[in-house]
Amino acid sequence: MEEEILIFGHKNPDTDSICSSIIMENLEKKLGNKCKAVRIGKINKETEYVLNYLGIDIPYVENINNDQKVILVDHNESTQSVENIENAKILKVIDHHTMNFKAPYLLYYRAEPVGCTSTVLYHLYKEKNIEIEKNIAILMLSAIISDTLLFKSPTCTEEDKIVAKELEEIAGIDVEKYGLEMLKAGTNLDDFSEEELINIDAKEFKKENAKYVIAQVNTVSIEDVLEKQEKIEEVINKEIAEKNLDLFVFAITDILNSNSEIISLGKKANIVENAFNVNLKNNRAFLEGVVSRKKQLVPNIDKNI
Amino acid sequence: MEEEILIFGHKNPDTDSICSSIIMENLEKKLGNKCKAVRIGKINKETEYVLNYLGIDIPYVENINNDQKVILVDHNESTQSVENIENAKILKVIDHHTMNFKAPYLLYYRAEPVGCTSTVLYHLYKEKNIEIEKNIAILMLSAIISDTLLFKSPTCTEEDKIVAKELEEIAGIDVEKYGLEMLKAGTNLDDFSEEELINIDAKEFKKENAKYVIAQVNTVSIEDVLEKQEKIEEVINKEIAEKNLDLFVFAITDILNSNSEIISLGKKANIVENAFNVNLKNNRAFLEGVVSRKKQLVPNIDKNI
Repeated sequence: MEEEILIFGHKNPDTDSICSSIIMENLEKKLGNKCKAVRIGKINKETEYVLNYLGIDIPYVENINNDQKVILVDHNESTQSVENIENAKILKVIDHHTMNFKAPYLLYYRAEPVGCTSTVLYHLYKEKNIEIEKNIAILMLSAIISDTLLFKSPTCTEEDKIVAKELEEIAGIDVEKYGLEMLKAGTNLDDFSEEELINIDAKEFKKENAKYVIAQVNTVSIEDVLEKQEKIEEVINKEIAEKNLDLFVFAITDILNSNSEIISLGKKANIVENAFNVNLKNNRAFLEGVVSRKKQLVPNIDKNI
Repeated sequence: MEEEILIFGHKNPDTDSICSSIIMENLEKKLGNKCKAVRIGKINKETEYVLNYLGIDIPYVENINNDQKVILVDHNESTQSVENIENAKILKVIDHHTMNFKAPYLLYYRAEPVGCTSTVLYHLYKEKNIEIEKNIAILMLSAIISDTLLFKSPTCTEEDKIVAKELEEIAGIDVEKYGLEMLKAGTNLDDFSEEELINIDAKEFKKENAKYVIAQVNTVSIEDVLEKQEKIEEVINKEIAEKNLDLFVFAITDILNSNSEIISLGKKANIVENAFNVNLKNNRAFLEGVVSRKKQLVPNIDKNI
């Protein structure tokens, strides 16, 4: 029996990671490959909106077998992948992130400097002359809307906009209306405990001797989230102690006005002052115009840590 | 004035590195980008045959300016690139090797598990619907013939063969006849000093605390090369001392019969005995059926060092 390839995105999956896994399954199957899209973490509220809209689901896996054949989408660094990724055989990587990747064997690697993995996948369909069905177009659009915050994030490229325009016709939806509803669904934080809040979209980074986490939540009301600041700090400090982190930055991003308030904790908490030219007050700072972890938070923190 | 992008392959360039640089320049120019193919080392005899056949040339650069925009072909590891690659801005990588790559910014990365970079480039032309001219087809074929030793190397994939078949028509040459002449031209080692011989196609590798070099020459007569063994060992031992190497493996590959004789020196010289299940005698061993550094020499040495 032919072995089934597992396709998955990063830990704490966002809409791009989930949608791109499902899209890649569709593409690989059309190319005749036996495969299955899975997730390695909990679906967030925004992604839930998309999956409910389409009436589809994606199974969860906790870890993988040794020598499991896998395709990674929307990430390449092992720290952001499934626990035992070192034991897997990575057949392909489809991504749009900075790179820190090693493999002692040949594989297919495709990264493009665009705002969303689904934009890269769109190119793959076009190159292989494979028709993009309505549901796939909606998945691609959802991923692009999510990663670019409806084309307002600085990570959004001209190519993402062009692809979204072409997808809109196939999808047959009003992108602005659908997109706002989807983003708003993602900002409903009522059901989350503080532990969950700081893990909705958290990524761990390593640089020489420093280990840090940048977590992000999207909201339409920063104030609502800050009401829980005391309890949030408590769970962040617990996380810092458990994982021996030097820094934990929790960004609360106002997706309507494109700003963020950050809470910075850990023994290197103060480096955000230089990084963003702000003063921490009550462990917090307001970052005007900052919405993107990849383009704004990570590079500035990385430079200063 | 728009900045010119430099395109180059690895140190000690082989035919794939040189041809793929020139092919990529052609492709990028057709896409409207200002660029120039260059080489970062001496042309070998085999590549010289190709360039003479087509009446073309490729300029040499010793190093690059800070922030120079570059495209890497046929390699991705910084140890195999131009000295000051750390200061460059890598826009694209087109490759078919194992990966050890970091970049703190987004870029276009395209690697495929095939025998030759030119096979990947062929796919890029097809995807972009760009016509492959006769000269470009001959360059692609030359690279594929070189990297696969006329389709006999274990690195050769079905895809390389399919692409070569399609290129043969455009190129209008007898691949077998042209290929043998090209490979034989590459085995003319008369003009080389021993210092040059061990550097014709040498690649350096690092693994934890071990640093080693695997050098390779192609020949139609292993005996002819072995006549110089004493002097070859002398220059290898000099290289080991200067670069503080743990191991230097010099493979003399018989391209007609697909075997290699290796000379193994350095304080870890004996690891080749386990790696290939042979006994070193007079620092040498015969490796039946071994022709590929990438698929045979590197993985077995890497496992045992």
